[in-house]
Order: sequence, then C-alpha cells, then structure tokens
Amino acid sequence: MKRETTPVLTNDLTFQEYMDQRKLTIDKHLDHCLPPLHTPPEIIHQAMRYSVFPGGKRIRPILALTTGEAVGGDFQKLISLAAALEMIHTYSLIHDDLPAMDDDDYRRGQPSTHKKFGEAIALLAGNGLLIRAFQLLAELPAQAAEKESKVAVLDQICRAIGTTQGMLAGQVMDLVKKGKPFSAQQLEQIHSAKTGALIEASVCCAAFLSGASEEACKKLGTFGRRIGLAFQIVDDILDSSQASSKPPATYPAMYGFEASRKMAIELVEKALQDIEFLGSRGETLTELARYISVRRI
Amino acid sequence: MKRETTPVLTNDLTFQEYMDQRKLTIDKHLDHCLPPLHTPPEIIHQAMRYSVFPGGKRIRPILALTTGEAVGGDFQKLISLAAALEMIHTYSLIHDDLPAMDDDDYRRGQPSTHKKFGEAIALLAGNGLLIRAFQLLAELPAQAAEKESKVAVLDQICRAIGTTQGMLAGQVMDLVKKGKPFSAQQLEQIHSAKTGALIEASVCCAAFLSGASEEACKKLGTFGRRIGLAFQIVDDILDSSQASSKPPATYPAMYGFEASRKMAIELVEKALQDIEFLGSRGETLTELARYISVRRI
Repeated sequence: MKRETTPVLTNDLTFQEYMDQRKLTIDKHLDHCLPPLHTPPEIIHQAMRYSVFPGGKRIRPILALTTGEAVGGDFQKLISLAAALEMIHTYSLIHDDLPAMDDDDYRRGQPSTHKKFGEAIALLAGNGLLIRAFQLLAELPAQAAEKESKVAVLDQICRAIGTTQGMLAGQVMDLVKKGKPFSAQQLEQIHSAKTGALIEASVCCAAFLSGASEEACKKLGTFGRRIGLAFQIVDDILDSSQASSKPPATYPAMYGFEASRKMAIELVEKALQDIEFLGSRGETLTELARYISVRRI
Repeated sequence: MKRETTPVLTNDLTFQEYMDQRKLTIDKHLDHCLPPLHTPPEIIHQAMRYSVFPGGKRIRPILALTTGEAVGGDFQKLISLAAALEMIHTYSLIHDDLPAMDDDDYRRGQPSTHKKFGEAIALLAGNGLLIRAFQLLAELPAQAAEKESKVAVLDQICRAIGTTQGMLAGQVMDLVKKGKPFSAQQLEQIHSAKTGALIEASVCCAAFLSGASEEACKKLGTFGRRIGLAFQIVDDILDSSQASSKPPATYPAMYGFEASRKMAIELVEKALQDIEFLGSRGETLTELARYISVRRI
C-alpha cells in the first residue's frame, strides 16, 4: 500500500492517515464487540479473533463510516454497523477458504482459519461471526422514531448476503460456472452479487441509518453499486497479475487487462458523479472511492 | 410415531391430529417463505428445500405456535417466528452432517444435503437458511408499539444460537470433548447449549411476541429450558438404543438408562409445574411437552 501524501483532508490528515485512524477505530470496536479471547468455549473465540485480526484494509466498514460522515450520521450507530459489516465479510472469507470451497491454505499471509484451527472450528467460527453481526445490527442504538430504519438495515443486509441476489447467490454462481463458459452478463451478475451487494449495502445502510433523504440514499446506492463492481474488477486485475489460482470468472479473462482497467476507471468516474450532490462533504468519500478501486491499478 | 387417540383436544382434534395440522400449517408457511425452487441460482434453492422438506416433527415451530396460543398471541407473527425457528434448526442439521463435523451420510432416511448436493452447496444452503431466518425475524409484522419486542426476539435468538451460551457453544464443546472425560455439569452445559437454548428461545420468543407479562415469560422460559433438556436426554436414550455412532457425551453414558429416563420424567414434571399458571389454556402445551419428551421413551 503506497503512502499517500496528498491531498490534505480535514483536520490536516493525509488520506493514508485518515485510513489508518479509521482502521484503528474499527479494530477497537471489533475487539469490544467480539467475545473476549478466554470466554469459554475458548477455541471458537480464538478462531473468530484470529480471522478478524489483524485483517485487511477494512474497506466495507470504512466506507460505511465515511458515507455516514458525509451525510451527518451518528457515530455510535455507524460504528456498530461498521463492525457488523466486517464480521460478515470475515465470515465469508473463512467459508470461502474451506477445502470444500476455494481450498486456500493462506489468507493475508497467514494460515487460513481452517489450517490453523481445523475445518470444524473454522466452519463454526464463520457462523459465529455471522450471528454476532446480526446481534449487533439488532442492538443498534436507536431512538423510538428510528426503529423502522433498524429493521430496514437488517433486511437490506440479509438481501445483500442472501441466496437470490446477494453474496451467497454470487458464491453459488461462481461454483456452478467454474470451468464453464459464461457471458459478460453472467460475469457482471456474479461480481455484483458476490462482492458488489455487500459494498453497496455498506453505503446504503450507513446513509439510511444517518437519516439521509430517500433521494440521497438512492444516489448513494448507485454510487455503492458502481464502486463495488469497480473494486471487484480491480481485484481481478491484481489477482490475475499475481498468477493466482482463482477461477476464471474474471474481467481480465473476459475483456483483457487494458479494457478491464478502463471499465473500472469509467465505473468510478460515474460513481463520483452520483455523489456530486454532496459537494465538499463528499470529498473524503471521493478519495476513498478512488483509493479502493482505480488507485490500486 | 405412535398414533395418539387420547386425549381429545379443543375442536374435537386428537393430539396427533393437532400435531399433523400444525405441521401442515408450518410447512405451508415454510414453502411460502423460501425462495421458489426455480429461482436462480436454482441449485441452492433446491438444496435448501431438500433439507427443509419433508422434515421432522417440527418440534420448535409447533412449540412456538402452541405457546403463543396459550397466551393469546397473534398468528401472523407466530407463524413467521415458527418458520424462522425451523430454518435455523435445519441450518444446524446441514452443517452438523458435514464431513468436517459428524460426517453423516443420511438424515431422516434420505441422503444428507452434502451427499445429495456436494459439500460446497450444503455449506452455502445452511448459511442461506440462517440468513433467510434472520430476514423473516427482521420482517416480523408489528405495530409501532411492538418494534422493541422484535429486536428483543432477534437478540434472544442470536444468543440461543451463538458462541457463548447457544447452539454454537454446544457444538464446539461437543467437538472439544469428543472422546475425553467430562463431568455431569459439562454434559448438562453441552445439552443446554446445543439443543436446549433454541427450544427455550422458541417458547420465550413466542410468549414475548404474544405480549405475555414479564412474569409469564419468565415462567415459560424456565418451562422451555427444562423441556429442552428433557428432549435432549430422551434423544440420547433413543440414539443409544439404536447403537448410533453419536459421540459419547450422552446422559445414558453418564448415568445409565434407567436414571436418565427418570431424570427426563422429573424435568418434564417440574416443567409442567412452571406452566400451571396457564390453567386450562395450558392443556395443549402440557400434552406437547409430554409428547416431545417422555412419551417417546
């Protein structure tokens, strides 16, 4: 990760400093929300924490916090949403790495959860993170008037990770399509469902919990959908150049590198138009959108 | 399952007819709540439905409906809770049967989900049912005044299936203890967490959603806890007599058959004292408590 020295953001933070601070805040809250390491039965809580920490860039929770900030949301609600999003993301990584799925021995340079704790504990640790995330979402602090929004958030996240349009649908399509020919439309469907839907939900739920107007939520939703797809295309490009064993349902395999790169850039440019209405309040979100997508390629 | 001809219940139904009718009602709602069979990606919805239907005795959802009836609850809310409980139960069975867990090739006389659809789809189908259950719970119909109870129900179910006191804790303790000596206290802990907690939650959440008083909820909670443990002891007794390959963390292995049988009977008798306050409204619940536990041994 290249250290960014420009632009200077509010409070005189560079963008990289902003990201680092956000990660610290999120990690502190994740630590607070997960059962302590020595809570019995210890092994499952060790496995859950091993999978969550040190973790990656925390894209989804940072996207939620930054979106919430841009529309004037309440930090307490946003940080719980952020922690829940990261737990859900981690659940999906643990299960994706299992031998029955992608069979990956390493994740972020350390043995994957099942290599470290065995398959059974890894399976259950994934489930534990998913359930803990739902509990956090159910407990989101809310005044009486906002209870409906809590339910709407739960509903949106269930759809974003469910079997018809969400992450599970994407995982299944990926499995079914492995080694088979697929159309450009199917490729976009897989990516949108597998990665895009949760990224979109991260933005939408943050806007919704922050009391943004219906129109603002809609625009931010489109922004999230485009950023989510761009993020996955960029991941495809980075994975392919590392000669990984990923299945061939990727943008570079379908369109070639240069065209994929161009598609990602165009998606981000369109996404940035979606949030022009935020004006200067959208500056950090703009930086973030570029950072998680095209700045990496 | 022995056909019951006595006692005669309200509407001149025998108890077995009552159970059969309840199962029909629940199955109809499960069918309504699950994505249709041909919803893409089809394979996951086939696997989810294969695992849910024809299913077992539907103990947890029937317990929720019968508890709700006893305290005057609203059918629409109860039936959604009931469907969610059965989906959660099915998720746990699919994952328990996986090779990394109990490695069971058969479930209720048919190939287990992973034998029929492969491990990856079985894993994802379990996740899909869990997530769909949460979505149902989030969408529970409720008037403004009752939104808090919806959140309380979600919270209680998360605890009942979570890693510190719930089903996941029980599954982990069971794994860790496999083949090792365990104390009577540990055995009760495993059973209470693995099976008891969700049965207790079925009763508690139904009472809560029906607007039962705090005192009534508390008594019904104790009833549920005792019935849940009795149910598992009876399952242990039935499993052992079938020379199954279950792990040895069972009541018969610890106390012998006769003492285990006596413990189950005493638990149910105590549980029935917990619901004496219901008077004649508790008759069907009393029948049900006996049916799911001691009547089977």
